[in-house]
Amino acid sequence: MKADTITRIIRFSEDRDWDQFHTPANLAKSISIEANELLECFQWSDDNYDLEAVKDELADVIVYCVDMLDKLHLDADEIVNAKMAKNEAKYPVEKARGNATKYTRL
Amino acid sequence: MKADTITRIIRFSEDRDWDQFHTPANLAKSISIEANELLECFQWSDDNYDLEAVKDELADVIVYCVDMLDKLHLDADEIVNAKMAKNEAKYPVEKARGNATKYTRL
Amino acid sequence: MKADTITRIIRFSEDRDWDQFHTPANLAKSISIEANELLECFQWSDDNYDLEAVKDELADVIVYCVDMLDKLHLDADEIVNAKMAKNEAKYPVEKARGNATKYTRL
Amino acid sequence: MKADTITRIIRFSEDRDWDQFHTPANLAKSISIEANELLECFQWSDDNYDLEAVKDELADVIVYCVDMLDKLHLDADEIVNAKMAKNEAKYPVEKARGNATKYTRL
Repeated sequence: MKADTITRIIRFSEDRDWDQFHTPANLAKSISIEANELLECFQWSDDNYDLEAVKDELADVIVYCVDMLDKLHLDADEIVNAKMAKNEAKYPVEKARGNATKYTRL
Repeated sequence: MKADTITRIIRFSEDRDWDQFHTPANLAKSISIEANELLECFQWSDDNYDLEAVKDELADVIVYCVDMLDKLHLDADEIVNAKMAKNEAKYPVEKARGNATKYTRL
Repeated sequence: MKADTITRIIRFSEDRDWDQFHTPANLAKSISIEANELLECFQWSDDNYDLEAVKDELADVIVYCVDMLDKLHLDADEIVNAKMAKNEAKYPVEKARGNATKYTRL
Repeated sequence: MKADTITRIIRFSEDRDWDQFHTPANLAKSISIEANELLECFQWSDDNYDLEAVKDELADVIVYCVDMLDKLHLDADEIVNAKMAKNEAKYPVEKARGNATKYTRL
């Protein structure tokens, strides 16, 4: 994501003095709440979804993730690369390839 | 996020032939599931959390968001800016400033 | 559910002095967390699920619902009947019958 | 819960021919979605919540749990007692008493 977009997200909260509500715990709740508004787009059908609603709800999840990164002074690339290194070690290509039981009982 | 990090996320699934499992509906479920592993870090206390666990779980949420953007051919900056424009119109600074009832009944 | 089962749930927390952790907010988080462990049973497939895992996770959701009813001195029959009355008024049989857009845009 | 209340929940779906939408996977999504509407009551504050909204949202969670029990032909007392037996063995009173690290690293 571009620096301008991230700045816009941070400034939105600053301008409204909402940083006081953005504790890590409240942001974790908010990410889950928005993730479930996204899930609601697929509540009764996997295929018949409203793409505009999906875009709005996915954006909301991302916005709160950016707020949480900012709040905890975390770098997205750093935490994602650290986690991807764990995932790559956990699921070796030769074992995981095309395997439906991938994440659970490999 | 850097292009390299995004490529690493996409290649991780491609190398394992997991794209077949990554329907938009399954990714929406996955974002919610990971969001709740993040929430679990704050289940019994708002302040006493394991930062390393928070980093791992927040990274997992972000990874599935990147997978969903890729699956639906969406641009993060584009959908986030479109949503921020709506949020800015919905919560004018003068009305929303420091207001605890911010999102709900402004 | 039988009175004995409800008593067993309540006594489990009392015996461990866990009531102090069972604030309404923490129980709401716990219900969401357990609901997502249930959802995880269906993460990659709608049909190919582990019934024993589903039973355990659904039980966990119900246990925390009972804890929350107890904490807030609510009666399950009372709140469910009050909500069903609203649902019945909101979704008249003649309009809602067999309608896939049922809950959202009826 | 009384047999009458359960019957009312089941008949509500039958009368609207909604059983076709109530696959176990869709019900799992629905429980998570409603659990997060309940969580939303506590999004920005643990203490300052709307009790009427909490009652409605908790009722919605319970209603979908009843739908899932019915769909899978499960008995609430049976699955809850089986899970409570596991919990009681997992968290012995003498070790778990008043322990904040209760569920995670006992």
